[in-house]
Amino acid sequence: MNEITTVTDTISDDRFAAGCGFSDGAYKPISEVTISILDWGFNKSDVTYDVVHVWDGGFFRLTDHLDRFWNSMDGLRMSIPHSKDEVAEILTECIRRAGLRDSYVAMITTRGVPAPGMPRKPGLITNRFFAYALPWIDVIAKDVQERGAHLVIAKTQRIATEAVDPKIKNYHWGDLIRAQFEADDRGADTAVLLDADGFVTEGPGFNVFAILDGTVVSPDKGALEGITRKSVFELCDELGVPVEVRPLTAQELLDADEIFTATTAGGVMPASRIDGHIKGNDRPGPISAKLKERYWQKHDEGWHKTPIDY
Amino acid sequence: MNEITTVTDTISDDRFAAGCGFSDGAYKPISEVTISILDWGFNKSDVTYDVVHVWDGGFFRLTDHLDRFWNSMDGLRMSIPHSKDEVAEILTECIRRAGLRDSYVAMITTRGVPAPGMPRKPGLITNRFFAYALPWIDVIAKDVQERGAHLVIAKTQRIATEAVDPKIKNYHWGDLIRAQFEADDRGADTAVLLDADGFVTEGPGFNVFAILDGTVVSPDKGALEGITRKSVFELCDELGVPVEVRPLTAQELLDADEIFTATTAGGVMPASRIDGHIKGNDRPGPISAKLKERYWQKHDEGWHKTPIDY
Repeated sequence: MNEITTVTDTISDDRFAAGCGFSDGAYKPISEVTISILDWGFNKSDVTYDVVHVWDGGFFRLTDHLDRFWNSMDGLRMSIPHSKDEVAEILTECIRRAGLRDSYVAMITTRGVPAPGMPRKPGLITNRFFAYALPWIDVIAKDVQERGAHLVIAKTQRIATEAVDPKIKNYHWGDLIRAQFEADDRGADTAVLLDADGFVTEGPGFNVFAILDGTVVSPDKGALEGITRKSVFELCDELGVPVEVRPLTAQELLDADEIFTATTAGGVMPASRIDGHIKGNDRPGPISAKLKERYWQKHDEGWHKTPIDY
Repeated sequence: MNEITTVTDTISDDRFAAGCGFSDGAYKPISEVTISILDWGFNKSDVTYDVVHVWDGGFFRLTDHLDRFWNSMDGLRMSIPHSKDEVAEILTECIRRAGLRDSYVAMITTRGVPAPGMPRKPGLITNRFFAYALPWIDVIAKDVQERGAHLVIAKTQRIATEAVDPKIKNYHWGDLIRAQFEADDRGADTAVLLDADGFVTEGPGFNVFAILDGTVVSPDKGALEGITRKSVFELCDELGVPVEVRPLTAQELLDADEIFTATTAGGVMPASRIDGHIKGNDRPGPISAKLKERYWQKHDEGWHKTPIDY
């Protein structure tokens, strides 16, 4: 399910083969989509974004992503001169020009570039909108998908909710990158971060789930309200698997029967090891594997799909 | 002392009047210095930087800034194909081309753009270097400089040291922007942030100092080891003012005899109000004002100055 499918039509264009972006009112090859070094979106990471995936010619949960993007902008007091429908049309045009049936599609709003001498007040700056569609590439390598991810619990703490609200999608990845280096140093694939009280939050780009006595448990705070996480809860409901959203301790994660992660860029991803603890015969656990399988099966059945008019 | 002085010579060029930048081996007008939207320096804020100021034709504490920049890169496991001397020369050339005698000069290293399909390991990505020189513009308006800044203590917490190390200069300003909005909403100029334990850390781009019974007190953790802060300590030594670097509570700040802030982009900046508490007749306090005066006097005397060969 992970190859890149390219449709050839009158609009798609080789210049867009690596992806198509949009900024300043124009569509351009992804390599030409750039941001000023003086935009606060870069030099203060004063920016929000969302990413929706396109699968077999259709958006997955487009409305959920647009709604979350607007909530994120509201949270940062940003606005753009486009409606949700217009943003959907811009994303669609990026996908069309890149000729993609499977894609990773981003929408971004930055604070913008203050005029020289302008008072340092973020509310005065005109915000800027960017978008792009890239060919779908699995963030997680095939062999890792088969054996299950190897996780570590990072010493680096997740940025606290009281400092930066994780429910507003943001690019503050300093802690996540530091945790990823910890994982790399320890020969693992990726890391899970705890909050200051020792509760599980999330990892670099994904939500975390433990399966304890047949119940799927996911943290109630300190993590993004992931849309793939929401999809997982729907799948659990369908499969009759109970779900608890509550504080999850590091020890519970270490002792869990199964662990899996969820992200737009990859979907449901079972783990098989954490801090050297080996889960379910060193392979993805049965409930995790079932959730992953149903996640993609239901894509094929048109679940939450908005077909693209190419 | 705050006007912009432009020298006209054979190198300076009108295209560079708004500033000159450097990226990908070339000098360019500041408006053309851009970063790919796919660079992790943008979309994961995986970036470090430093800013040095140029005053009356000379860098201020250039070596300190270069050393700190290199320490920041080491901390993030980044490297660039330039020596410190080469970076100094690039910065100098930006200043020359922009024809500036007073300037705000930045050096930046981003993680870079991963190759498509590359494993998500930050250590594999080739880092990128950027630099620019902008005309000196006071971040703090003249009237605020005269009356003293009005501060609030923000409800937003500073990002914890255990998540993102403030000693590595970073663009994680989500908390600082949120705090700046709190200040704007409350009619103040800017904000001071506390850590999770209620101790004073820093504000948006500046270190904080309280004067308590004639002693200058500045937080020992949770804040950048500012180079202007270091300069303040040297000035205190010269003026015979005792200094303590130790935990500082919010209540101590509210009760302080004087408060001031320090930043490369503006120097020493006295405050006259905090959360409605009025300090020293609603004007900059005498020790703060003296430190500010000496800070600029000593600039004129060539303190820590590296003259630029225009």
